[in-house]
Amino acid sequence: QVPRFLQDLHPADLAEIIADAPPEAQGPIFEQIDDELKPDVLVELEGAAEENVLRSLSSEEISDFVEDMAPDDAADILGEVEERSQEILELMEEEESGDVRELLQYEEDTAGGIMTTDFVAVRNTITAGEAVEYIASLELDEPFYYAYVVDREDRLVGWVELWDLLKPSNRNKRVVDLVEHDAIPVHVSTDQEEAARVAAKYDLSSLPVLDEENRLVGRITMDDLLDVIQEEASEDLFKFAGSNESELEYDSPLRACRARLPWLLITLATGFLSSVILKHFIAQITTAEVLSLSFFVPIIMAMGGNTGIQSSTLIIRGLAVGTVRNQKILKLLSREIIAGALMGICCGLIIGLWAKLMIDRTVTDAMAFSTFYLSFTVGIALFAAMSFAAVFGALAPILLDRSKADPAVASGPFVTASNDVIALIIYYLVTLLMLAMHG
Amino acid sequence: QVPRFLQDLHPADLAEIIADAPPEAQGPIFEQIDDELKPDVLVELEGAAEENVLRSLSSEEISDFVEDMAPDDAADILGEVEERSQEILELMEEEESGDVRELLQYEEDTAGGIMTTDFVAVRNTITAGEAVEYIASLELDEPFYYAYVVDREDRLVGWVELWDLLKPSNRNKRVVDLVEHDAIPVHVSTDQEEAARVAAKYDLSSLPVLDEENRLVGRITMDDLLDVIQEEASEDLFKFAGSNESELEYDSPLRACRARLPWLLITLATGFLSSVILKHFIAQITTAEVLSLSFFVPIIMAMGGNTGIQSSTLIIRGLAVGTVRNQKILKLLSREIIAGALMGICCGLIIGLWAKLMIDRTVTDAMAFSTFYLSFTVGIALFAAMSFAAVFGALAPILLDRSKADPAVASGPFVTASNDVIALIIYYLVTLLMLAMHG
Ligand SMILES: [Mg+2]
Ligand SMILES: [Mg+2]
Ligand SMILES: [Mg+2]
Ligand SMILES: [Mg+2]
Ligand SMILES: [Mg+2]
Ligand SMILES: [Mg+2]
Ligand SMILES: [Mg+2]
Ligand SMILES: [Mg+2]
Ligand SMILES: [Mg+2]
Ligand SMILES: [Mg+2]
Ligand SMILES: [Mg+2]
Ligand SMILES: [Mg+2]
Ligand SMILES: [Mg+2]
Repeated sequence: QVPRFLQDLHPADLAEIIADAPPEAQGPIFEQIDDELKPDVLVELEGAAEENVLRSLSSEEISDFVEDMAPDDAADILGEVEERSQEILELMEEEESGDVRELLQYEEDTAGGIMTTDFVAVRNTITAGEAVEYIASLELDEPFYYAYVVDREDRLVGWVELWDLLKPSNRNKRVVDLVEHDAIPVHVSTDQEEAARVAAKYDLSSLPVLDEENRLVGRITMDDLLDVIQEEASEDLFKFAGSNESELEYDSPLRACRARLPWLLITLATGFLSSVILKHFIAQITTAEVLSLSFFVPIIMAMGGNTGIQSSTLIIRGLAVGTVRNQKILKLLSREIIAGALMGICCGLIIGLWAKLMIDRTVTDAMAFSTFYLSFTVGIALFAAMSFAAVFGALAPILLDRSKADPAVASGPFVTASNDVIALIIYYLVTLLMLAMHG
Repeated sequence: QVPRFLQDLHPADLAEIIADAPPEAQGPIFEQIDDELKPDVLVELEGAAEENVLRSLSSEEISDFVEDMAPDDAADILGEVEERSQEILELMEEEESGDVRELLQYEEDTAGGIMTTDFVAVRNTITAGEAVEYIASLELDEPFYYAYVVDREDRLVGWVELWDLLKPSNRNKRVVDLVEHDAIPVHVSTDQEEAARVAAKYDLSSLPVLDEENRLVGRITMDDLLDVIQEEASEDLFKFAGSNESELEYDSPLRACRARLPWLLITLATGFLSSVILKHFIAQITTAEVLSLSFFVPIIMAMGGNTGIQSSTLIIRGLAVGTVRNQKILKLLSREIIAGALMGICCGLIIGLWAKLMIDRTVTDAMAFSTFYLSFTVGIALFAAMSFAAVFGALAPILLDRSKADPAVASGPFVTASNDVIALIIYYLVTLLMLAMHG
């Protein structure tokens, strides 16, 4: 009755099949899976599919599945069924629930929230041979590659690579003498993004996590670090667009609206501002008989907006991957100023020529201003808007970061829309100034 | 003479210090580092700092350093000094240069380009005990965690975890009986992004790579996969902004201009189009005495652009992390249509009200159109522009992906600017239609 192929697939593939199925079929498909695979498949599920399958399961069933999971995965599942989590914990065997309870106390996006309690620690005084024997006797839920070396107070001294312990020449050496690396400590409250940055920088396949007393309490495994890096990159990318990375895991259009609409409304509100400014602007230029200047409003706004995005992208991503460091900020700012001005000159010249072309063809009656003067105005305005946007785009994420806010917000619709409006205001002011100077 | 603290730092930290130093100091600082650490520091350097340090070194020196590196890192360095690479290869010891030559033949962003030849393979017929003994005798440049099991033709059969081999109960079992996992093959020509996706999906800490005859020829280690994931996320983020991720590694403003200016010029060119359309638009509405409609041009363009970005972000990121799969495309498109229309109705209503307010205050003389009719026009136009942008924003990356192009291009300035212009055209057409219908 059960399609045989379902049993031959990897849990990650089974999870994909469930995620692609219609919501009402997700529980029943999960039901069909071999009992042994169910915990692994449940771990791989995310978002809407995870919710649907969990809803179809009794607390009894869930408690059986989470008992078979690595403690960090069990904690994640319990985090998803918040109302039932106490009940499920009580249904679990004492031994299994202890670790999970411990992990549940940490914030989701900290090192504590992604670590597992399943690690290998050896006392610094034993020999490599003893360590190998000890390790061979362990029952672990997850692959490991480093043995952590701790002192008698459980404080992390360093780590040894498992295959270093195997070398015949090391058999009788004390593990502490094989410790090659300094401890690079990450604490339970360290932000998960910072933990991922540390792992990437020092090329660690698994990251030890310490508590406030510097005792080793867990490790973060590579697969979970990979997920964090993907997640954080998604988060920043969706912030760009004014939306939310949870959209990847939920298909409902209403949910999409809920994530996106607030940002669109911000764009709308800034747009209201631009309509008021434009109204005054047009009133000014119609009296001056130079309505043609309004043709260039969209270009100047778009160019200001884009220049700002380019600068802020550089800073936001640099902060995320660690290439933007405090020592470099002044250098980076001066670079943005120079680049913004250079690109502004270049684009200002081009738009000036284009404006001259367009205005020449528009004007029929005698005008108070030469077409050269008007196109010069357009060029200067674009130059000013782009130069400003480059600096503002770079400064916004730096200031946000300094004030402990997420710099990625600076790429969001609010700052982008501000860039648009500021470009318009600059255009308006430059025009007023130029018209006044001429008069 | 050498500052002592330089010797106590991790190579990754030393590389950061060099990267933060002025260009002319980078070679001399590298010179000061302990000879033993130099190869590790050189591996960690990137971009401009890497170029500067390499330029300060003789081919002789470089050949000594790369001999001490893992083969994949050595190949990367040789890729950076292209003109001198033959010379350096000849200066290297035969044994070391062979692997590197082999790796140099693969494209940089394929699995072959990021794999190392340094892996552990055991024949399927030996026992776990024999495997452990063999492994303990190896000299490896890099940590490893899986032993790959191959048949007599070197074809990959699967892998065993090192600590599984250590279990006393497994000592006399044949390794082939301990193979738990199916082979998840990645070939030398597989795109690096696809390789990273496979590793993340199946939670693999290291990824075996096969040649065309399915023989095991290398493995990709986790630290390099992490770098790929960061790099690919950066690539997509910078495409968004119309720039290039190499900006992270180079500080020169001229280089920034070179990366950004082409995209700004595209925005400029589409802007020219918008100025022409706007000119005709304004000619239409001035004759109809409804110039006030032009106040809303920037809002409608910005809203169309943003709605499009939201849709394309979802698809682009979904394709990158693997949540957008063929089976789901129709579902996703229908979701975008519904979400776009819902948000369009909502924002259309709001802008209609706002337009009524603004137009009421603007109009003094008797007009051919009621202010209600005009603000209705604005609302309808925004609704149409947003609905269209949502669908176009989702379709563009899907079509690019189908035609084997990079879907992330769809978030770049070209598509964004098109969205802007299309929104303007829609506004123009809706206005013409409404004015004509009234007449
Ligand atoms: Mg899950
Ligand atoms: Mg957790
Ligand atoms: Mg690294
Ligand atoms: Mg885990
Ligand atoms: Mg972040
Ligand atoms: Mg975060
Ligand atoms: Mg390098
Ligand atoms: Mg390479
Ligand atoms: Mg995974
Ligand atoms: Mg490597
Ligand atoms: Mg890509
Ligand atoms: Mg790529
Ligand atoms: Mg825009």
